[in-house]
Amino acid sequence: MASIGIDLGGTKILAVLVENGQVLGKHKLPTPTAGGPQAILEAMGVAAHEVDPAGTAVGIGVGVPGPVVPDSGVLPLACNLSDWTSPVDVAGELSARCDRRPVFVDNDCNVATLAEHQLGAGRGVDNLVGVFLGTGVGAGLVLDGRLRRGPHGMAGEIGHTFVDFWAKANGESQGELEDYAGRSALEHRARDLHSQGEASLLVSEAGEGPIKSKLWKKALDMGDQPAIRLIDQAAEALAAALATVVNLLDIEIVVLGGGMAERLGPAFRDDLVQRLASRTFAGRLVPIRTAETGDNSGALGAALLVEESRT
Amino acid sequence: MASIGIDLGGTKILAVLVENGQVLGKHKLPTPTAGGPQAILEAMGVAAHEVDPAGTAVGIGVGVPGPVVPDSGVLPLACNLSDWTSPVDVAGELSARCDRRPVFVDNDCNVATLAEHQLGAGRGVDNLVGVFLGTGVGAGLVLDGRLRRGPHGMAGEIGHTFVDFWAKANGESQGELEDYAGRSALEHRARDLHSQGEASLLVSEAGEGPIKSKLWKKALDMGDQPAIRLIDQAAEALAAALATVVNLLDIEIVVLGGGMAERLGPAFRDDLVQRLASRTFAGRLVPIRTAETGDNSGALGAALLVEESRT
Repeated sequence: MASIGIDLGGTKILAVLVENGQVLGKHKLPTPTAGGPQAILEAMGVAAHEVDPAGTAVGIGVGVPGPVVPDSGVLPLACNLSDWTSPVDVAGELSARCDRRPVFVDNDCNVATLAEHQLGAGRGVDNLVGVFLGTGVGAGLVLDGRLRRGPHGMAGEIGHTFVDFWAKANGESQGELEDYAGRSALEHRARDLHSQGEASLLVSEAGEGPIKSKLWKKALDMGDQPAIRLIDQAAEALAAALATVVNLLDIEIVVLGGGMAERLGPAFRDDLVQRLASRTFAGRLVPIRTAETGDNSGALGAALLVEESRT
Repeated sequence: MASIGIDLGGTKILAVLVENGQVLGKHKLPTPTAGGPQAILEAMGVAAHEVDPAGTAVGIGVGVPGPVVPDSGVLPLACNLSDWTSPVDVAGELSARCDRRPVFVDNDCNVATLAEHQLGAGRGVDNLVGVFLGTGVGAGLVLDGRLRRGPHGMAGEIGHTFVDFWAKANGESQGELEDYAGRSALEHRARDLHSQGEASLLVSEAGEGPIKSKLWKKALDMGDQPAIRLIDQAAEALAAALATVVNLLDIEIVVLGGGMAERLGPAFRDDLVQRLASRTFAGRLVPIRTAETGDNSGALGAALLVEESRT
């Protein structure tokens, strides 16, 4: 039984054809930045057709950048997609473009966690958190072997957990994990430091452009002090948030993924293991495994939604 | 079908006889402070007999002050019980003292949450957190209608979630919720302030004795500044921890209980609702309901373990 999985991101649409956990084909398109939801739906329809021209797939799964009410197929809002400011029935609209085959829609971090749980670093572990470091910080939770979605599809918002409750009173930030460990917030902090006289090659090399994950790694390797300090804070905030998740939910392992985590590599991960152990209840050592499904995780996990719907 | 529920606390053992959610009888004993686990098991056996002399109950549930590995019946460690420093098979030992009837054992916050979910303020809500303010801060989670225990029975440790990740680096504390909102930590902070010259009636009235919940309420009512400031911090830290739980798990309501919450009353709760709303994702308003099962919650919830085992 083959399924199509589509990862709808802010910059690209990736479609894969999957059978028995194997990727049989891939097709990538840029995400339309104009034309709103209709243009994006049209592009997804094209990607689905291109990856499976014979129409062998029994269903289509889609991972989207925003919370989805379970079983609704509707994406209410997506800040990083063109004009996606009101609810769109992705399942219905995409199904109409794909021979009325069934379409299942879920949040991108949820489907990536599903991929890691079933085909990646989380195989055989029934209680885990998948955490993804990128522009922001997202997560998915598997509890007792099942993805935790929550009644409104809002579960997993680790980026919006509070690691510094004083920050709000002091007017600095909300004190959420994302304020310390998201690449977007990190860039903001680096530019602030730079303009206050703490010169950093992060800013001198990036200029007006974005400070990408690759540049963060380079700055660390070259001993850039602002970069070292900011990543140290990010790691400590992340360790605190993960310890909160472990202590609250009795989680067995952490799966770490996302572009930023990939670039920072094993040294960052190993350091994080130590920081986490110093905060877990009774000093419990919780393994942190590197995500294995890489760039395919979203599309692969989306394809798994089709199988999940049949069980 | 009648069941016995036993709440094993640091100072008292409360046994209830329950049928169809109604308490038919109660018996209370002081918890033996010498003689170790055997003396405590003996007292629990007596309490079970006293509350149900005819032996009509089909089983016995026990709520204990510590994490319990699911389905094991074993309490590994209990800091506030006499000599309870190694694992004891509470289920087996108590069953032997009670005509070999089946005995089910779980953590006290879990059973109190079970009571609130099935018979109290959480009836009909399938995603909730029960949070209990006392010497420390404990919690239980109901997700998709089921108590979340976790593979090691360690779930629900909200007191050990991190609301201030800087505190550890600064050597102040671990920065856990309990460091700000547990009565024990609050007392410590009040005494520190007092000895540093910020006179408080909390300390002048309590003297060498414990600062009880009732005295905290009195100090607030009399406008005692250190008390007001410390409870303000406690509320903000608690709001941050609850917002973390809501944002991470997509929780529908909070049930607030425990001796300290009872004393602080509706004003504290209503204030907490506002603080929570200012931190939840998309400003979602999450109701906070006052726990309804009161002093019976532990024993009542323990009795529900018997029913739960039959479904």
